Amino acid sequence: MLSIIFTLLLGLLGIVFVVQQIRFVLSQDAGNETMQEIAAAIQEGASAFLNREYRFLSGFVVVVAVIIAFFLNWQTALSFVTGAIASAGAGYLGMYVAVRANVRTAAAAQRSLSAGLSVAFSSGSIMGMAVVSFSLVGMTFLYLLFNGDPNQITYITGFGFGASSIALFARVGGGIYTKAADVGADLVGKVEQGIPEDDPRNPAVIADNVGDNVGDVAGMGADLFESYSGSIIAAATLGAVLVSSDTSPLTFITLPFLVAAVGVIASLLGTLMVKADEPMVQRILQALPAGVTEALIVRADENSTQETLLSVLRRSVWGASVLVLLFTLIVVLITGVSLNYFWAIVVGLVAGNGIAYATEYYTSYTEKPTKSIAEAAQTGAATAIIQGLAVGMHSTVAPVLIVALATLLSIWLGIRADGTIEAGLYAVALAGVGMLSTLGVTLATDAYGPVADNAGGIAEMSHLPAEVRVRTDALDSLGNTTAATGKGFAIGSAVLTALALIAAYVSVANVESLNLLDPTMLPGILIGSMLPYLFSALTMTAVGKAAQGIVMEVRRQFREIPGLMEGTAKPDYKTCVAISTENALREMILPGALAVIVPLATGFILGKEALAGLLIGATASGFLLGVMMANAGGAWDNAKKWVETGAMGGKGSEVHKATVVGDTVGDPFKDTSGPALNILIKLMSIVSLVFASSFGAGFFTF
Amino acid sequence: MLSIIFTLLLGLLGIVFVVQQIRFVLSQDAGNETMQEIAAAIQEGASAFLNREYRFLSGFVVVVAVIIAFFLNWQTALSFVTGAIASAGAGYLGMYVAVRANVRTAAAAQRSLSAGLSVAFSSGSIMGMAVVSFSLVGMTFLYLLFNGDPNQITYITGFGFGASSIALFARVGGGIYTKAADVGADLVGKVEQGIPEDDPRNPAVIADNVGDNVGDVAGMGADLFESYSGSIIAAATLGAVLVSSDTSPLTFITLPFLVAAVGVIASLLGTLMVKADEPMVQRILQALPAGVTEALIVRADENSTQETLLSVLRRSVWGASVLVLLFTLIVVLITGVSLNYFWAIVVGLVAGNGIAYATEYYTSYTEKPTKSIAEAAQTGAATAIIQGLAVGMHSTVAPVLIVALATLLSIWLGIRADGTIEAGLYAVALAGVGMLSTLGVTLATDAYGPVADNAGGIAEMSHLPAEVRVRTDALDSLGNTTAATGKGFAIGSAVLTALALIAAYVSVANVESLNLLDPTMLPGILIGSMLPYLFSALTMTAVGKAAQGIVMEVRRQFREIPGLMEGTAKPDYKTCVAISTENALREMILPGALAVIVPLATGFILGKEALAGLLIGATASGFLLGVMMANAGGAWDNAKKWVETGAMGGKGSEVHKATVVGDTVGDPFKDTSGPALNILIKLMSIVSLVFASSFGAGFFTF
Repeated sequence: MLSIIFTLLLGLLGIVFVVQQIRFVLSQDAGNETMQEIAAAIQEGASAFLNREYRFLSGFVVVVAVIIAFFLNWQTALSFVTGAIASAGAGYLGMYVAVRANVRTAAAAQRSLSAGLSVAFSSGSIMGMAVVSFSLVGMTFLYLLFNGDPNQITYITGFGFGASSIALFARVGGGIYTKAADVGADLVGKVEQGIPEDDPRNPAVIADNVGDNVGDVAGMGADLFESYSGSIIAAATLGAVLVSSDTSPLTFITLPFLVAAVGVIASLLGTLMVKADEPMVQRILQALPAGVTEALIVRADENSTQETLLSVLRRSVWGASVLVLLFTLIVVLITGVSLNYFWAIVVGLVAGNGIAYATEYYTSYTEKPTKSIAEAAQTGAATAIIQGLAVGMHSTVAPVLIVALATLLSIWLGIRADGTIEAGLYAVALAGVGMLSTLGVTLATDAYGPVADNAGGIAEMSHLPAEVRVRTDALDSLGNTTAATGKGFAIGSAVLTALALIAAYVSVANVESLNLLDPTMLPGILIGSMLPYLFSALTMTAVGKAAQGIVMEVRRQFREIPGLMEGTAKPDYKTCVAISTENALREMILPGALAVIVPLATGFILGKEALAGLLIGATASGFLLGVMMANAGGAWDNAKKWVETGAMGGKGSEVHKATVVGDTVGDPFKDTSGPALNILIKLMSIVSLVFASSFGAGFFTF
Repeated sequence: MLSIIFTLLLGLLGIVFVVQQIRFVLSQDAGNETMQEIAAAIQEGASAFLNREYRFLSGFVVVVAVIIAFFLNWQTALSFVTGAIASAGAGYLGMYVAVRANVRTAAAAQRSLSAGLSVAFSSGSIMGMAVVSFSLVGMTFLYLLFNGDPNQITYITGFGFGASSIALFARVGGGIYTKAADVGADLVGKVEQGIPEDDPRNPAVIADNVGDNVGDVAGMGADLFESYSGSIIAAATLGAVLVSSDTSPLTFITLPFLVAAVGVIASLLGTLMVKADEPMVQRILQALPAGVTEALIVRADENSTQETLLSVLRRSVWGASVLVLLFTLIVVLITGVSLNYFWAIVVGLVAGNGIAYATEYYTSYTEKPTKSIAEAAQTGAATAIIQGLAVGMHSTVAPVLIVALATLLSIWLGIRADGTIEAGLYAVALAGVGMLSTLGVTLATDAYGPVADNAGGIAEMSHLPAEVRVRTDALDSLGNTTAATGKGFAIGSAVLTALALIAAYVSVANVESLNLLDPTMLPGILIGSMLPYLFSALTMTAVGKAAQGIVMEVRRQFREIPGLMEGTAKPDYKTCVAISTENALREMILPGALAVIVPLATGFILGKEALAGLLIGATASGFLLGVMMANAGGAWDNAKKWVETGAMGGKGSEVHKATVVGDTVGDPFKDTSGPALNILIKLMSIVSLVFASSFGAGFFTF
């Protein structure tokens, strides 16, 4: 109980930090009139999308909540609504700030690189800390509300379901939006009309900028909100069934919360390391002995280069990791659980960093794999595509081996600690919690990228001096590097969370036999493995359809608005935004519904064993397909960027054209279908966990 | 015992038919001198490749045989060698005839379409019947040799392993060869020098034609030889552990052999329906009542259109299917086993046709999916690629649902028959045998395609009248349709066979618990799911590397041989053939070795449970990735062909160029990596089955 209140308080501390950071960002210079005008259009478009999306989602949430209340109980329904609201709230806040921080980043970049970083990173840290603290406050609030009820943890699974539902639609809808706008703007603007990217004459340019925010800020935030909440819920659920000789199950339930809570402190401190010039941070630093301050802080100043900035960001993430391990060790020692659980958390954190490193290796253009794509592009687009797919497939090896080893090690540690397989699975769940414990700061390094990207767009459109664009480009490219790391964490944590949730499902559903050769198990695994393919097919086609709508509209405007090309007339940005919004929302419904309906139908028709098979199959298959698509997409993107630095003939060469084809294929891979698979596997697992007690043996009894 | 001798005799009957057909093909007119010269070059290239491949494989086979004899016993080693020889023999024979039938088909096509079909189809039927009868003769010979030994079926699993090893290298090596030569010939010939396809001035043209034979004839034959043998072995192994109340286990062991045996008769009769004008067939037909003859035979004559020919081929496959069911019913009634097993065989045969139908739907340009790719090509190559991948992913849904349902139904039927899960798994294996029972004729309709393709090339190179090329093109396009069907059967049967082999492995390895949540099981499943991705990455990269070698050589020849472009000097075909051979053989070793070493290492290090997980993961993941790649490749190919018929702007348009990019990406998809996955999943299962008794609990004991 004390631990939960402690967690709640740290969650609230996180919210205080968020409020303070929002004040900081909004107090910055918002630039000249043109910049503010453009920013206002982006803000309006983003709000329009989120409002429409949330309106649709409210209906969905109400319907599902009623179904849950009817079939299960009001407590789970309430948790579901709370989870949905907390996730949507964090996403809304993150977006609200991001579309205001973009123009302020552009303005600050007029001063220096590090001033730009400070604003952009503050915006990212708001998203990061909001996700973490909203999740912890929401879950501990429910925990206290249901306190004393033996089913309290079961009810709280509803929170995860609510968060997952929002995440799915935010990722899928946002992913479709951002790529449809991007492709639509490029196809007509760059290709047909020959005007540069981010040109204000392009009617889809605002929609494109809005897309970066709805996809990469709100979508990514919702994705990790779900992983974060799901990993804690899975660990708590498995902890509840763990009966150990020397500790009460209650300790096992609260341990994941405590680890998350100390993660908040570690993330806060990590974040402050980046923002060493803020007055509040200065005061803290002055209180420390001088040697400590020097060791911790790489000060970004007016003359900082990109390398310095990268090392600032890296040091903040590493610093937070070291701190979280230290704090966790203390927690483990105080609660008196086996030290093995501490090691499981270490395994999770190391595995997360390992996957992040592998992701960076395969998608960075300083490394062989991405260069090999540009080399293959010398014989044309087809060979660039083949090589990119091969790189994507090859890149699955390391993450799979890392996750397999992490799972094996943490199960082993858990079994060594308490002698039961339940303890082993609990340790897997803890590894997931450990991997995400520094989310507050890792998400910050990730979510600031789109802000920098937008800042570049605004600088371009408002004709700021070229040096400003150079600085925002440097920030953007820095963001791409940290985003690769973030994607590694996102996929790794999704898999560990899904595995833990499946284990929790099996435990709650009381599945007696999980024999692989059970009659319904093999069909379950096969169908589960197929779902990520169907899901990807639907989302990729959706991007195409939605982009088609934009293309038509942009062509229409160039044809019907006189003076548009000459810059004497203004394009109608709003219609493009409206079309993107409409199409994205329409196209997200079918894949989204599938993710909820298929596990439920399987559980009721084929039975709870088959559902377990389906979840395992979907997790393994979704993991692989997701990594392949995300990394192939990232590698194509960077192969193009490498050529644009002048390699292999440089911009405009035949090789460049071939890499552009690769990049375009990669767009829905890395920004729509790939990331959506993370959500698919978690959502299916949590839906199954929430309804676990309702499933029977199915209709095929033997 | 009687059943085995009966099977052996029918196998021998098949061989008699093969000999008679070889005589028929070789007795046909071999065309004019130019044609014979070209054909000789192709024959020489094909022999050179197979000789070098088989020399390498002999070494491999000897080494593995010694290892088997050392770790297991000499009987399994002998079976291994027999399986390897039988498979290699069938492949060699098929190729030997195919590279002689091609020129004779071209010569016959000078007379009429149906004369051309007769020669080409005879060549295909030799491959089909050789595969079936060599497999049956080999296995029954071993059965009789080991008769009385309680382990006789366990020894015979070695036959499957031998067949699989050959298949892997034939498919992978052949797949790399054919695409490297194809891409190499096209890149320099068509793109750089602007000369048409199949132009005799292109130094790689002979290698390209050889490639069609080594890839699609020898490779496909070895693939299905393995499925066919494997499905029978899996069923016999599972039958051996089946103790029923009213029948002896011996009946269950021999039942799959009997079903295969009556399948030989059915396939023979089906084949004869196509060859109604041969004297031998005429004599049989005259003995039948006139009404029966008319109902059975669609006579292909001088004026037959493509539709008539397709219906001839379809009727022969359908006729064989009906016959096999009739004969199987009789067998089941005579042996006295439950009728449910008959229904399981029906389920398998229906499922095979269902998958074949689905494959045709997704890859035929008369249907929506393939057309959608051409439509997407209107906005460029990138959208054509995205749409093709989406179609490929979407096309996995039907095959997975069909296999899942077939598995569920046959397990259900088996359990209903004998009340045990073993009976259920036995029924799954029987469904696999049922699906392949008409292989003799289905493979014939598939393996004649490359012969027709080659015939077209020869007609082109020897400047035969245009109408001949029109006819061979018609035969080729007919072959593409039936090849799609064949690919559906290949993948469906591979999955059912793999599942049955895994069940046999679990039974022989005496795996006590197959709990999905066992410590080593999840890592096993994850690693297994990853292997098909790694395998595909390696094979796709191999094609690229091998093609690069050809490109260099062809460029060199155009540069250094004076008069080559003018047609006054002859290119050096042999060096291109030698380079293709060398590269393909070198590149096939790593993926091939992986497929053998990984399951063994997993079994020894992580233990037998983890290996079961690995196999399940690899089967599910390989099935999906394989179907996706094969169908995306087929759809891209036909989208291009559809545009070439004049749709969407026709040949030479921008849309056409975009579909050419898709087709090139699809080449390694459909002809190298995709089909190789069929083998990967079967080979890993059979390796595990052969060494099943050697695996322990592994090093991670808990």
